[in-house]
Amino acid sequence: MSKITLGAFPYLYPMPTVIVGALVEGKPNFITVSYCGIVQHVPPLVSITLIDRHHTNQGIKETGCFSINIPNTRMLKITDYLGINSGDNIDKSKLFDVFYGALKQAPMITETPLNLECRLVKTVDMGSNCEIYFGEIVESYSEKKYLKNGHPYIKKLDPILFSINSNNYFKVGRKLGPAWKIGLRYIPK
Amino acid sequence: MSKITLGAFPYLYPMPTVIVGALVEGKPNFITVSYCGIVQHVPPLVSITLIDRHHTNQGIKETGCFSINIPNTRMLKITDYLGINSGDNIDKSKLFDVFYGALKQAPMITETPLNLECRLVKTVDMGSNCEIYFGEIVESYSEKKYLKNGHPYIKKLDPILFSINSNNYFKVGRKLGPAWKIGLRYIPK
Repeated sequence: MSKITLGAFPYLYPMPTVIVGALVEGKPNFITVSYCGIVQHVPPLVSITLIDRHHTNQGIKETGCFSINIPNTRMLKITDYLGINSGDNIDKSKLFDVFYGALKQAPMITETPLNLECRLVKTVDMGSNCEIYFGEIVESYSEKKYLKNGHPYIKKLDPILFSINSNNYFKVGRKLGPAWKIGLRYIPK
Repeated sequence: MSKITLGAFPYLYPMPTVIVGALVEGKPNFITVSYCGIVQHVPPLVSITLIDRHHTNQGIKETGCFSINIPNTRMLKITDYLGINSGDNIDKSKLFDVFYGALKQAPMITETPLNLECRLVKTVDMGSNCEIYFGEIVESYSEKKYLKNGHPYIKKLDPILFSINSNNYFKVGRKLGPAWKIGLRYIPK
């Protein structure tokens, strides 16, 4: 076997690239996050992890809600900009056209193809400098042009993939096949 | 604004496609999972969600560890096969060349380009039919041919993206730019 050990790293490929929104002292703030995943199907729960010194954390705790906004590849520069610059230093409230939904306090970005409005249901502190937030997705927002059969379609959304450690962004490539179907063609040895 | 509401769904794009491994009653078992995300940087923690009736859950609880194996697109059919068929009904222990690492009881797949060996550190039950497992990544395994500058490189790994609701698999596309750099070119309006 030619396997080698690489050490303990968060090597998951790919990761999504999302913009988390929260109201901080009454103003919309946004931060780019790749530590984000679905953790439950029904009711739908998403997890995000933020370093505890981030400006956004305060807003999530104050309001009990946040948004997840999925940018497309045309928004690459501004998406990365949000991850480089802290809301402690710059005002991010005017960068986007912001709208609100059922929760009233989760600022969402009109320009991103997809928005998930989330109610904070659990905070997990594992003793590091990170805070893990579980949010229940109470509503999602998109536009007809991004849908196929009533659901968002990944090639229309054109999301940004994040690749950790090389720290690069990538585009979604070609379709490979249908889930829960293509495996029917596998013949065990 | 032309946004429409779509309801509460786990709409995250893309999701990864990973194969979770565990020893169930002493035999390696594997299941395909897309509800998987990094939840902490140091020490590195990953979350996976499994429906509680799955065969694999029993093994994770018994041994206190599991593996995350990241297949490439050439393994598409067998990867999907593992998600269609339960270890309750078929013996998945002979499908792969299996190896073990530091934890001794987390079966890993030689054929997948990347393996994360995980020690179970927390189980979160949110009251649904799912169980959320947090694993500390204690070691990772790969081969030199999948690395660039000492780390796994996504284009060499060639992982499988999962797109929920349309339920299709996709390939990684072209590189868009470097993280924490391309945003320096963004000029706020």
